[in-house]
Formats: sequence, structure tokens, C-alpha cells
Amino acid sequence: MEYRLADRMAGARGSIIRDLLKLAGEPGMISFGGGSPAPESFPVAEIRRSAEEILMKKPAAMLQYGISEGYPPLRESLKAHLSKTEGISFEDNEVLILSGGQQCADLTAKLFVNLGGTVIVEDPSFVGCMNAFRSYGGKLLGVKMQEDGVDLEKLEVAFARPQVSFFYLIPTFQNPSGYTTSLEKRRAIYRLAIKYDVLIFEDNPYGELRFEGEHVPTIKSMDEDGRVIYAGSFSKTMAPGLRVGFLVFHKDLFNKFKIAKQGTDVHSSTLYQHVCHEFLTSPAYEKHIAASCALYREKSRLMYDEMKKCFHPAVRFSRPQGGLFQMVWFPEGTDAMPFVQEALKRKVITVPGSAFTTDPDQPSNGVRLNFSLPSQEQIVAGVRILGDLTHEMLKG
Amino acid sequence: MEYRLADRMAGARGSIIRDLLKLAGEPGMISFGGGSPAPESFPVAEIRRSAEEILMKKPAAMLQYGISEGYPPLRESLKAHLSKTEGISFEDNEVLILSGGQQCADLTAKLFVNLGGTVIVEDPSFVGCMNAFRSYGGKLLGVKMQEDGVDLEKLEVAFARPQVSFFYLIPTFQNPSGYTTSLEKRRAIYRLAIKYDVLIFEDNPYGELRFEGEHVPTIKSMDEDGRVIYAGSFSKTMAPGLRVGFLVFHKDLFNKFKIAKQGTDVHSSTLYQHVCHEFLTSPAYEKHIAASCALYREKSRLMYDEMKKCFHPAVRFSRPQGGLFQMVWFPEGTDAMPFVQEALKRKVITVPGSAFTTDPDQPSNGVRLNFSLPSQEQIVAGVRILGDLTHEMLKG
Repeated sequence: MEYRLADRMAGARGSIIRDLLKLAGEPGMISFGGGSPAPESFPVAEIRRSAEEILMKKPAAMLQYGISEGYPPLRESLKAHLSKTEGISFEDNEVLILSGGQQCADLTAKLFVNLGGTVIVEDPSFVGCMNAFRSYGGKLLGVKMQEDGVDLEKLEVAFARPQVSFFYLIPTFQNPSGYTTSLEKRRAIYRLAIKYDVLIFEDNPYGELRFEGEHVPTIKSMDEDGRVIYAGSFSKTMAPGLRVGFLVFHKDLFNKFKIAKQGTDVHSSTLYQHVCHEFLTSPAYEKHIAASCALYREKSRLMYDEMKKCFHPAVRFSRPQGGLFQMVWFPEGTDAMPFVQEALKRKVITVPGSAFTTDPDQPSNGVRLNFSLPSQEQIVAGVRILGDLTHEMLKG
Repeated sequence: MEYRLADRMAGARGSIIRDLLKLAGEPGMISFGGGSPAPESFPVAEIRRSAEEILMKKPAAMLQYGISEGYPPLRESLKAHLSKTEGISFEDNEVLILSGGQQCADLTAKLFVNLGGTVIVEDPSFVGCMNAFRSYGGKLLGVKMQEDGVDLEKLEVAFARPQVSFFYLIPTFQNPSGYTTSLEKRRAIYRLAIKYDVLIFEDNPYGELRFEGEHVPTIKSMDEDGRVIYAGSFSKTMAPGLRVGFLVFHKDLFNKFKIAKQGTDVHSSTLYQHVCHEFLTSPAYEKHIAASCALYREKSRLMYDEMKKCFHPAVRFSRPQGGLFQMVWFPEGTDAMPFVQEALKRKVITVPGSAFTTDPDQPSNGVRLNFSLPSQEQIVAGVRILGDLTHEMLKG
């Protein structure tokens, strides 16, 4: 039969990255393409012990239907953790456990994005969340990123538009750019949001993975009128396969979000929520985060130092202070796509900056590199191949 | 701030059942309210062994990001299983693994339900799926159920309407009625769907739990033009906490569904998909299903026999041949709500039929009883309390 899809699906897109990742399994391939954390960082022994123990002690509770708002012990330990680490108050806020950061974006879009509504995003921004917004019929409006966060003048112009669903940003170790929005800009963004009555959707999956520099407070910690919806995840701090993320928002929104979660998939894995709760409340958690940060510091510096040595000097990049990504920029006006394609032929996977923009058909001079997943040997070998390529491409 | 929710959320509703279930934990409460399978039926040892073994052997594969379309071994074993048990051909069909039956309904609605679009449902029907359809702005149109399936004349009138997104039905051991649509009606429904070019969404979470009578072929097994989207789940055959369900549809829809899944929550639990795959392909599976059916046969017959003894003769009910539910009907024109409320005071939880209709504010003469979760002692004690109440209420 001829299928008549809902109008919202006209804008739905798949992720070019997940398509690229299928190549990553081919022999000899070096992947700087994914957004996956290092598997050697996964706290495997703790996850296994915790899962085994609770499946032994309380199998029925783990395997029966669970609670839509989330496993109560995890909701409590998360509140304590987020109060301490991110300065978020739970006097007026609530936490809802969801299936990873992606579902946080999906349900926030479901609640707030009308067909044809405007979603303001950083340019570039994370393709997975942009796709979630697109899948509800949202029109994306990008605001150029600078090293210290979005261009505020352009943001104000965007905020002044009618029918803005929300402003989505990743203020800390942004994906794909690796940039961190400064404290001054965070304050200014919040003030602008009040002035134009715009909702803020702050995504912070990488915040705990700081391996250099000083902590910058979340926008949610400044929130006085319930204007900020905050998303976090255990995907990068523990393991993505757990599919445990969470949203924090004003308690007035609790019932709507809970209903949305219930109607979407009833509840997230109780077993893995228990595992996250146990790990988060154990002394092993802090040590684990410190070890992950040390690992990523080493990989990131190695990538940066090798790029300094091997890349053509016209290619710009800065040194990340945390997270999983490093972006490099060809001279203004260059289309980076031929570079990405030629690199792929030479068995190095990178992602073109265009994938992270509101119109992926427009060329971008940026390329995203992931340093968390490849081994040190792969980083050295891959950067050399990319470095040679920058020289070949920019020699003319 | 004043939140401006998306238009679709105006129709979103929570489940009265999940609210009732919060009472189920109170001491002395007998719950016939839920839709949960019997925890004593969960194959706990197999699940634990399988989970432990794979977390030992392949921790990184289980804990890293997985594939949006589902764990490949499970997709293959499901195809073999569904070919064998349900006569579904995979020449033109594909299978997508999702997080439980609820996500099957959610993504099907996301793909096909426009704001204001009509979704035709059986009356009564499963509230969880109706809520999923409502949450995309779908308008529900109910078609009265008879013991052998929907009223075909009324269905034809409904099919003739414009802008029908799809017809949602649970042909086997329907929730809440317990009714099974006859083979003749299944064929007639498929023919009518062709005539009016309507998509069919066939939900079959209980099909394997037949404890009496003969297997009736699925509508999907008759599908010749990709008109039927078929949903199944491991929630009732293994355990709901696994959150593993699946959709079968024509391969032309694969990419759209995959993109929708990717944007919603990236992928379902790889660990639990592995557990389902191992169990489904082991000789233990068939024995387990037989044991579950024996357990439910015993509970269902006990409930039926006790009702025959204790209920006022004006209350109608038939004997289920499978599944988890039994519906009872007060005389036409009676509102069953006072019965449900008084039963709750006497510590027996039941669900009013109105919860399963397209307009829950209209009275219904039906009451849904679940026989899978309560123990045999609870069934006997609970039915006596309900029986006394039927006599009190109908004596006037």
C-alpha cells in the first residue's frame, strides 16, 4: 500500500554518524567518528557485581513492571549528587529518569515542539538532538558558536522571533565543537531568556569529564523561575549501554513529563537504574570519574600534540578542557567534505561539520574528531594520515 | 514561567491503572487491577545466568552503544520464531526491536498520527496504547467489541471516514475484554482495510499465552500488501522489566522506523536483547511458555469458577481462553464505577471499563479483572468480596 506518514516525519533524518560507524568495524579502520566513551573506562566489575547481586536478591522487583518516574533510590541519590556537584536546588525542581540523553531530548521535544515551531540551537550542535527536534516537526535555527559560547547578539535576534519552542545548548565541552560557554555568557543567556520569555534546554552529558581548567556553574544552578530544563546521562560517565539518563525541571512540569514517559515506554530498565544508584552512592564513583578524566586528558593531549606536529598550520583548533571531542577548522570558505571523504579512503573516519548544522547540505569548514574511543596508537597513526592530507589539500 | 506546551499534549492522559497500582502495595490489598504477568512465571534463573555469562564474556559489547535496529542475533531468532509460530513471512517484512510493546505503539503513532488524525480502536481497548495515540494529537474513534471481535458494520462506517491514521486492534485475548477475534472477522477486517485503504496495527502481546481452544492465525499472516504493522513483546512471555518488544512491518517502512527509534532513545538494552535471544532459541522456551499457560489456566479457571459461585446472576462474563484478563459486565445501563469504588474500600482493586473507552468520562457497565498477578488465595478471597458486592448492588 501507499503509506501516508504524519507530517512531522517529513523533517525526520537519520544520523550520518551512525551510518559512518558501521564502517568503523572494518579491519584496519581508525575511527575518530563516533561519540562513544572508551570501553576501557567502563566500570565493568562494579556493574556486573551490582547487577548479579540484585538479580539474586530481588529478581521479581527487577523484572516486573517498574515506576514511570524512575527507580526511587536513584531519583534520591541523583538529587543529592546534582545538588552537590552542579548546585541544583530541588526545592522547586524534580528529577525524572529516562532512557539515556537521547530520550531527554525526545520527550522535551514532544512536550514543547509544535509542527513548524522554532527550536534555536548552537551552530554547530549535536546531530542526535537536532534529529529529535526535527522528528516533531521543529524548524531549527542555528546561532553561531564562538569559543566562549554562542554569539549573544545573534542569539537575541533569534530569541525575538515568535513561536520559539526552546533554546537547546550544551554549555560544557560542547558536542561537536568541544567549546565551553563562559560563566558571563551563561548569565547573559539566562537574562536574555527571561527578557524574551524563552525556555532553555541545557544538556550536560560531559560536564563531569573535566580534565583541565575550572568548573563553570550550570545555567540550571542560576534558574530562579523554572525556565531551564536540564538533561544529564550516565552514558559518558558509566556506560552508554545502560541507557540511563535524567531530566531535571520545575515540579510544575512533573506530571506532563511523567505522562509522556509512561506513554512512550512505561519505564526505563530497573536493573540498570539500580546499578547506577549503587555506583553513584559508592566511594568508587569519584575514583572512577577521576580515572576517566585522566584517561581522556592523556588521549586528548596526545591528539592535540600530534595535530600540532602534523597538521598544516592553516588548520585551526584549540585544546579541549574536557569531554570527548575536538573540532578542527579549515580556512574560512573551505568545504571540509573532500577531506572527510579522502580520509575515509585512507581508513580514518572523521565527521564533517556540516552534519552538525541546521542544513547539512550546506558546506562547512569544520571536522569533528573523537579522542575517547581510539587507542593511543590509533590516535598517533590516524592524526599522521590526517596531517598528510591537510598538507596535500592546502598546498595549492 | 508560563509553559507553552505543544498542541499535541492537550490530549495527553495518564493511566488511571498506574495510579490504582500505587494502592496495590498497601497491606491487605488484593489487586485484580494491574496488567502484570505473574512474577512466579519469570524465568529468573535463565535470565540471571544468561546476563551474568554475557557480562563476563563480552562486557564492552553489552555496555557500549548498540544498534538502533536491534541486536542482530535477536532480530534473526525472532524472524525464525514468528515464521514458525505466527506464519509471518519475512520475504517482504522486517523486524525492529523496541523497548516493550508500549514503544511499538508510540513509534507507530509518531510515524502515522497527525494532530487531529483519527485512530480507530476497539471499544473497549488498551488504555496504554490509546494514551500513546492521544499524545500525538490523535482523535480516538471506538468501534464496539462483540465476543468474536469488533462489529463489522460499525467498523465499515469508521473506515469510510477521511484521515484515518490506522485501526488498532488486539485480536487475541484482548485487553481489557479477554475476547478473541474470530478467523472470519480477521479476514473480513483485512478485506475492509483494503477496500477503504486503511492501515492495520495489530498488537499481539498475549498470543502465546493460550491455555484453551485453538490457535487463530494473525492478521499479519494474511497480509499481502504491507498493510499490517504487527507488534509483539517479551513482557508477558518472559518479564516486563526486560523492556523488549518488537514491530514487524513491510521493509519499505524500515528506514523511517529506524530513524524514529534512533531519535527516540538510540537503542534498546543490548544485554536484555541478548537474554531474550538466548532464551528464545533454547529448548527451555517452549517449556516455559507451557508452564506459564498452565499457571494462567489454573488461575483463570479458579477466578471464573468462583465468580460463577459468588456473583449475582445478572453479571455477565465469559471464560477466557488465554491472556491475563477477564471482563465482567453489569446489566446494560449500569454504571460500574460505584462498584469499583466500593470494592476499593473493601481492599479489592479492579478497573472500571470506562478507563478503556475513548471517553473515560462516560459511564461503562464493564469491569476488568486481572487473574495473572494475584495468588490463588487472593483470587478466592477477592472474588468473594466482589461477589457480595454484586448482590448488594443489584438487589434493589
